[in-house]
Amino acid sequence: MDKDNLTVVLHSKGDLRLEQRPIPEPGPNEVLLQMHSVGICGSDVHYWQNGRIGDFVVKQPMVLGHEASGRVVKVGSAVTHLKAGDRVAVEPGVPREVDEFFKSGHYNLSPSIFFCATPPDDGNLCRYYKHSANFCYKLPDNVTYEEGALIEPLSVGIHACRRAGVTLGSSVFVCGAGPIGLVSLLVAKAMGASQVIISDLSSDRLAKAKEMGADFLLHVKKEDEPKEMAKKVEGMLGCMPQISIECSGVQSSIQTAIYATRSGGVVVLVGLGAEMTTIPLLNAAVREVDIRGSFGFGIYICWPVAISMLASKKVDVKPLVTHRFSLEQAVEAFETTRQGLGVKVMLKCDKNDQNP
Amino acid sequence: MDKDNLTVVLHSKGDLRLEQRPIPEPGPNEVLLQMHSVGICGSDVHYWQNGRIGDFVVKQPMVLGHEASGRVVKVGSAVTHLKAGDRVAVEPGVPREVDEFFKSGHYNLSPSIFFCATPPDDGNLCRYYKHSANFCYKLPDNVTYEEGALIEPLSVGIHACRRAGVTLGSSVFVCGAGPIGLVSLLVAKAMGASQVIISDLSSDRLAKAKEMGADFLLHVKKEDEPKEMAKKVEGMLGCMPQISIECSGVQSSIQTAIYATRSGGVVVLVGLGAEMTTIPLLNAAVREVDIRGSFGFGIYICWPVAISMLASKKVDVKPLVTHRFSLEQAVEAFETTRQGLGVKVMLKCDKNDQNP
Amino acid sequence: MDKDNLTVVLHSKGDLRLEQRPIPEPGPNEVLLQMHSVGICGSDVHYWQNGRIGDFVVKQPMVLGHEASGRVVKVGSAVTHLKAGDRVAVEPGVPREVDEFFKSGHYNLSPSIFFCATPPDDGNLCRYYKHSANFCYKLPDNVTYEEGALIEPLSVGIHACRRAGVTLGSSVFVCGAGPIGLVSLLVAKAMGASQVIISDLSSDRLAKAKEMGADFLLHVKKEDEPKEMAKKVEGMLGCMPQISIECSGVQSSIQTAIYATRSGGVVVLVGLGAEMTTIPLLNAAVREVDIRGSFGFGIYICWPVAISMLASKKVDVKPLVTHRFSLEQAVEAFETTRQGLGVKVMLKCDKNDQNP
Amino acid sequence: MDKDNLTVVLHSKGDLRLEQRPIPEPGPNEVLLQMHSVGICGSDVHYWQNGRIGDFVVKQPMVLGHEASGRVVKVGSAVTHLKAGDRVAVEPGVPREVDEFFKSGHYNLSPSIFFCATPPDDGNLCRYYKHSANFCYKLPDNVTYEEGALIEPLSVGIHACRRAGVTLGSSVFVCGAGPIGLVSLLVAKAMGASQVIISDLSSDRLAKAKEMGADFLLHVKKEDEPKEMAKKVEGMLGCMPQISIECSGVQSSIQTAIYATRSGGVVVLVGLGAEMTTIPLLNAAVREVDIRGSFGFGIYICWPVAISMLASKKVDVKPLVTHRFSLEQAVEAFETTRQGLGVKVMLKCDKNDQNP
Repeated sequence: MDKDNLTVVLHSKGDLRLEQRPIPEPGPNEVLLQMHSVGICGSDVHYWQNGRIGDFVVKQPMVLGHEASGRVVKVGSAVTHLKAGDRVAVEPGVPREVDEFFKSGHYNLSPSIFFCATPPDDGNLCRYYKHSANFCYKLPDNVTYEEGALIEPLSVGIHACRRAGVTLGSSVFVCGAGPIGLVSLLVAKAMGASQVIISDLSSDRLAKAKEMGADFLLHVKKEDEPKEMAKKVEGMLGCMPQISIECSGVQSSIQTAIYATRSGGVVVLVGLGAEMTTIPLLNAAVREVDIRGSFGFGIYICWPVAISMLASKKVDVKPLVTHRFSLEQAVEAFETTRQGLGVKVMLKCDKNDQNP
Repeated sequence: MDKDNLTVVLHSKGDLRLEQRPIPEPGPNEVLLQMHSVGICGSDVHYWQNGRIGDFVVKQPMVLGHEASGRVVKVGSAVTHLKAGDRVAVEPGVPREVDEFFKSGHYNLSPSIFFCATPPDDGNLCRYYKHSANFCYKLPDNVTYEEGALIEPLSVGIHACRRAGVTLGSSVFVCGAGPIGLVSLLVAKAMGASQVIISDLSSDRLAKAKEMGADFLLHVKKEDEPKEMAKKVEGMLGCMPQISIECSGVQSSIQTAIYATRSGGVVVLVGLGAEMTTIPLLNAAVREVDIRGSFGFGIYICWPVAISMLASKKVDVKPLVTHRFSLEQAVEAFETTRQGLGVKVMLKCDKNDQNP
Repeated sequence: MDKDNLTVVLHSKGDLRLEQRPIPEPGPNEVLLQMHSVGICGSDVHYWQNGRIGDFVVKQPMVLGHEASGRVVKVGSAVTHLKAGDRVAVEPGVPREVDEFFKSGHYNLSPSIFFCATPPDDGNLCRYYKHSANFCYKLPDNVTYEEGALIEPLSVGIHACRRAGVTLGSSVFVCGAGPIGLVSLLVAKAMGASQVIISDLSSDRLAKAKEMGADFLLHVKKEDEPKEMAKKVEGMLGCMPQISIECSGVQSSIQTAIYATRSGGVVVLVGLGAEMTTIPLLNAAVREVDIRGSFGFGIYICWPVAISMLASKKVDVKPLVTHRFSLEQAVEAFETTRQGLGVKVMLKCDKNDQNP
Repeated sequence: MDKDNLTVVLHSKGDLRLEQRPIPEPGPNEVLLQMHSVGICGSDVHYWQNGRIGDFVVKQPMVLGHEASGRVVKVGSAVTHLKAGDRVAVEPGVPREVDEFFKSGHYNLSPSIFFCATPPDDGNLCRYYKHSANFCYKLPDNVTYEEGALIEPLSVGIHACRRAGVTLGSSVFVCGAGPIGLVSLLVAKAMGASQVIISDLSSDRLAKAKEMGADFLLHVKKEDEPKEMAKKVEGMLGCMPQISIECSGVQSSIQTAIYATRSGGVVVLVGLGAEMTTIPLLNAAVREVDIRGSFGFGIYICWPVAISMLASKKVDVKPLVTHRFSLEQAVEAFETTRQGLGVKVMLKCDKNDQNP
């Protein structure tokens, strides 16, 4: 283990730097990881470009990155279930307190939770990173590091589909064919959805969605009327979908999702938009269409399930990765993501192993 | 049985008339009822004043009234579970088709449902009325006709509290202390809520709520800031409520309900407001506060439960009735309701028995 | 339409006859069907061999058959959603009353339900049969008649997996690889189970299960110890399954299922066994392993879901059919089923079309 | 704080001793409590008389007691939510690991959980006891220490009623009127049950149940036939109960509970009986009556709810306490419990305050 701990640090809005940081020492319940693959998330780019997401403001330098996998190089004194050499995926949220949320199985909602790359907590875009051992999950041999890193976005899809109640025979409308829309598509199919329709402004993204299993594609334009779009969804599916998963955060798309959803159904909000939104709430209320948030970070108890899905080849996330950069090329990688090129950009943190 | 079938008919917006109608003949699966007590609902007044509610437009004369109880005077040839003389409460919604909604236990959402006093379907503000026998429920001896008529609004409260998931120890915020707010309060307490806070513009209504068991009263004014009101709710309860039941339909009140509700909680919308509403959807989404409609008319499988609650004296709805009028005084009764005097106005349809 | 209505009638225990019956006339809400494909179920054979199943006793001649599909040849006066020529699958249970079970979405539990080939109700192993139109489901062009007939057993699997709560990443133990075990396997996989282990006495059946997607096979012998079998299940899966679906009804197999299931998990009972059963109830209780029945006939709201699964090719039930006989060969077909040869025996009722 | 730490220790089967133990020092996340009131549970007596419960065997001296409340006298360095002088109730189960059960909100099922007075873990029948601060809950001023100690059995009732799904209008059959039966009765009523019937061999216990709100009493004898008892339950209620809560663990009583429960209902097993039990499983399976355990110790996230119920006076547990003894009289107190005298025996551990 050399001393090199090259790290991607956001100092303030627009000020992204590569710098050396000391290699941390794991505490009794922690492990030290040599990072292997870390995906760039829209939120990383958003912090870089805007310096904040809602009430989360970058006030001091913060390490970016929270879609990660790596290799255990050192274990804390109290750790028994992991050992040096284990390949692991990292769950980025770690509850700090045993509060009512944690006790009732919703630690993701705990207000004091540690969360990688959410101010003021550091992420893991670096060579060496320490993390709570309880929130590192051993990868089976037939699951790659990149699949391990993709568990984080995959978990967002799992959480969204669970919140939506996707089940055998569900008809699902996914709004937006970015990374989150695509994993929602994958998960909805794996949970038994019989038909999934997906919408986007970009025909490239729709083509990717087709490749990944979408049954119907809806090419939308900015000026489209929500009610008309809803009618198109019904026309294409042959029925109104029971479930809509909104991944864009755009007001007109949320409106379309509400109009499109069958009475008694569910709209899940994954995409984050403006603080105040104008929606046809009366339409939703009288038809008992539930509107449920699915906090992008809120992905409880998903890692073991995601690993079992990857190990049993029930979902194939590999096509999500369209670009790879070495850690040294981090700025270029971020720029690629900012321009919306491809789907998922992966940073390779291990100098000696840049394989998937 | 004489030929008098005095009936309250809405001919068009603003044109309410008392007129004679023929006494109907029950079909094989129907019963003929001599109506006893029928409550006036806000929707009855709304049709009278506006001629419509949303897409439901009064295009031809329609009998008003759907909160009703009466006595069976004739049974159809196929009816076995009721007989002449039985005292019954009337469930106003009767599915016309065995569709997917009906098969899955949600007949209230069936698009073709018959619903009393919803255009074009006639209600039961009259002397004699026929109804599907399967949707008439026999009242035990210790439940009065008026309690029977109040099952309809009580069921709205039951449905709302079920949709909200009220359970042992719930903290509940009820917005609005009109009839629906008050029954929601009663039901929440009966389902185990440990504390209920209720808000209203009127101190008279809040006093009634206090009398009916509210733990905390929040006197609001039109200009109050939603975020500040939410803080007040938390301050009074000592915690954020898990559940808010919005009964006013007013935009600022819906906003307050969202801000006030604990992460992972539920806002149920019972009050109907404007078509488009501006709400802090991002706040709700990231805190996973669900927004669920509870269609005022959507009160499935509530009657047997309501009857058992009334028979076992678990809820006392009697204080809701503040005014009584004979059927002949219907116009005066409607005017009283329109002016917002008291809580529930009851019309007494049986000339020979005007008791509760 | 000729007058030939050859019909398979069970007169009493052991007395199976082929005889002509008059072609029935559909009532206003019924359709007349020309039957195409009808599968033989274990219960049909059980009635033939024993004259009864539990409290259901064959006291008068009864037509057998309840896994059926056919072509509409005549529609009742009130039927609007079907027309002559439509190809349909038949849901064999039709509620006779709008009782509390029906109203709450559990018509399958209604005590007075009509059920094909359950005494005293006639089944549909014949040329022409009339049925409630609301319980006939139109088949899409890409779903065959035999797939339509197989919806009945498939629905048993859907109902079982729903009762079990199979979801993304579930580990499932299916006890018994007969037709019901195999459809449970198919459905569990389609609902997202990551691994399914299946047990049987017969290595032929296990081979079929392998072909249909089982991840692990457990060959059991009659003298095997339940606790040891449970250990084997854990060993093969690498963990205890959250869910066991018991399809044999055999006491030792039920015991194995309880011991094998993870704490907090579910054992679903599909196979019907003896009236009294001795089980390790304490073990189940302290580990909060739920024991849930899944009434073989209890398959509510499954047909539309099954059709969407078949149409979208999410499940492939075709390999279940191992034998086909013309209706005239019914006795031979029953004998084949009685001997446990193959998996599913299909009777072809249409003289002019014996295709799948 | 003197040095007196009189402690009730079970050395082995039948060998109960009062002895001095050193006062423990709280760790960083612990608090030291001066114990005030500790109830004697059936399991304490069972260990004393039998030296074991199932696989839990007393192999070394163990302190008894797990229904406890006390006063904080010292707080660990990391504790922020409690301070010296706080009156608290003690949740006796404390998870040792952040495993899959803990993460998913079921820490009560964690195999490595610490549990007071369950071998080899010590209980709190002593003067001074240290406990995880996260599992001590501050009592409001209007909740007594004894109410605080009774939260443990009350939580068993809450967990049982939750597992059963008791809700508004439920009809509930409670088998057994001991402490657990009585708290189940209290909780069922508080959750909205409209009628509760309770059975017991003892007319004294039934009289207590009547006093605490039971609607119907069923006096059973050992030789009663389960099917006949079930008929009696239906006769008294006027319908079959949706829910049965079995608190006796006796085979014939479990059989009665199954026969008595309505189709689609639930039997919850709280009482622990023999390892193997013979039950009418076929009857339960075909009628889809679920059989669910409710592990006596498995009472997750109940303390805050119980405290809110006690503070708001929704349940009154005070009548449960029929006997009080000073800690010095512990042997006499245990003997009283062993003889089944009264309902709940309370030990008063604070020399200077023996009030409720």
